[in-house]
Amino acid sequence: MGQHCKILDCTIRDGGLVNNWDFSIEFVQDLYNGLSAAGVEYMEIGYKNSPKLLNATEPNPWRFLDDNFLKEIIPEKKFTKLSALVDIGRVDPDDILPREQSVLDMIRVACYIREVDKGLELVQMFHDLGYETSLNIMALSSVPEKKLIEAFELVQNSPVDVVYIVDSFGSLDPADIEHQVKKFKEMIPNKQLGIHTHNNMQLAFANTLAAMKNGVTFLDSSVYGMGRAAGNCHTELLVSYIQKTSYELKPVLGIIEKHMLEMRQNWEWGYIIPYMISGVLNEHPRVAMAYRDSADRDKFVDFYDKVTSPEIALATASK
Amino acid sequence: MGQHCKILDCTIRDGGLVNNWDFSIEFVQDLYNGLSAAGVEYMEIGYKNSPKLLNATEPNPWRFLDDNFLKEIIPEKKFTKLSALVDIGRVDPDDILPREQSVLDMIRVACYIREVDKGLELVQMFHDLGYETSLNIMALSSVPEKKLIEAFELVQNSPVDVVYIVDSFGSLDPADIEHQVKKFKEMIPNKQLGIHTHNNMQLAFANTLAAMKNGVTFLDSSVYGMGRAAGNCHTELLVSYIQKTSYELKPVLGIIEKHMLEMRQNWEWGYIIPYMISGVLNEHPRVAMAYRDSADRDKFVDFYDKVTSPEIALATASK
Repeated sequence: MGQHCKILDCTIRDGGLVNNWDFSIEFVQDLYNGLSAAGVEYMEIGYKNSPKLLNATEPNPWRFLDDNFLKEIIPEKKFTKLSALVDIGRVDPDDILPREQSVLDMIRVACYIREVDKGLELVQMFHDLGYETSLNIMALSSVPEKKLIEAFELVQNSPVDVVYIVDSFGSLDPADIEHQVKKFKEMIPNKQLGIHTHNNMQLAFANTLAAMKNGVTFLDSSVYGMGRAAGNCHTELLVSYIQKTSYELKPVLGIIEKHMLEMRQNWEWGYIIPYMISGVLNEHPRVAMAYRDSADRDKFVDFYDKVTSPEIALATASK
Repeated sequence: MGQHCKILDCTIRDGGLVNNWDFSIEFVQDLYNGLSAAGVEYMEIGYKNSPKLLNATEPNPWRFLDDNFLKEIIPEKKFTKLSALVDIGRVDPDDILPREQSVLDMIRVACYIREVDKGLELVQMFHDLGYETSLNIMALSSVPEKKLIEAFELVQNSPVDVVYIVDSFGSLDPADIEHQVKKFKEMIPNKQLGIHTHNNMQLAFANTLAAMKNGVTFLDSSVYGMGRAAGNCHTELLVSYIQKTSYELKPVLGIIEKHMLEMRQNWEWGYIIPYMISGVLNEHPRVAMAYRDSADRDKFVDFYDKVTSPEIALATASK
């Protein structure tokens, strides 16, 4: 099992949502070299959104990837391919070079179900520029079946290479994943599938295994799980577990030992009770993240009362 | 799903392997009251081994449970039943009162596959004294099928109520659990089944769900996962997840907030890289635990080299 799988490491991109992309160049280079030595197929090195469209006042190289900068950082490509993520309405087409002039190999488009048409327009553009592409459908746990069927009709006629199931809220379990994957496979049999999980209920790895078992080939993960709120499936677990002779665990252990323990001291992600609660309630972690930034951060009973009271539930639903 | 399940919380018993049972009476009482309010069916309040047989030089009330002491601590039973674990060769039959004179409701017998006959002798004795009983077969991931079939023949003729699948090394995945449960159900259809997991690969909760889905009814867990090495399936996850109107999450959150965060600062358990490695290698965590107690505790690459070198592998196998 797993012979045809590809691991896509999101440490920089999703982990940047934890620390506002406060990664040193040394760390990003060590990560790239380590993932290459480990045999990890892809590394998502950040977002390729437009600083202008986001009214950015400060530089943020991993949030606003620049091809010239990337070429300096990674002068020589090794085993691992590079990808970038873009958001609908935040990417400037003029920023995207043809693939042969770029260090990037793949551009992934994140979108909600209501924006699939816009997402696929971007995919078409990146595809025409020569990139591998994916469409990452977020918040899948809240998408009604009818909407998904409509979206699949558009996807089928698109050149997109990979369609991702994204459990943004960390609220799905392995049986849910199996159900979703079977639906995706039935309705878009001509596309490769991907999975992106969050660890709110300690199910990120198990959900990724369930997806793999059911034929998903693109597996997202992060080293030591670094990603927004509860974080992602751990890269070191996938590298250990998947029966593929090309994977080597030691380079990933080296990254954890050299960098991640200290980063975890400075920044917070992982299994933390308010994130567990937002996962159980199938809600965006933003309320829990704000709570963790407040003086009440460890008042779990109080947090649970707030997020399950009718008033708050209404306020959250209206967002 | 889960209507017929019972949660058995092992925080004191398995957690005691982390801190040498350094639990305050207040904590144990808060835990008992919280689990009762949460609707958790059983609490394992410690080991009922014999201090004499273990040559104990110091008192250790949760390791050597005493009925008179327990009656002082828990003068009034609430919803949650109490259980104790014993080990083969470490329990003195004279220490065990008839159930009607004891606060305990259940006695569980831990044994390796080679000692199943001795384990079932103890089970018979506890059963005759009026207790609910279980046989917990440890290190199941290393048991050859033939040995298991022999053990099942003995189990079938025993009055034991519950037979446990114990993933001592945290090395099984949900597919392994499903396979084991199906085998157990087929060969001992007249017994209830239990599951006890460890979280080395972040699969303790997923494995418990896989067991539940396949008909296992006794689910072991610990609050905040407190248990030896990588710890156990988290009680708060089971209470959140299982669709049973009798479970209440808030009392468990209260225990975590009041006690577990501070205990986790003082004692170490959970997903920690050397435990992940011992899980992946299907080995007892003792080598990893010793490493975590040394100055080299965070040298993960070095640890991996040591435990995967042929000499060490031999030394471990001979234990």
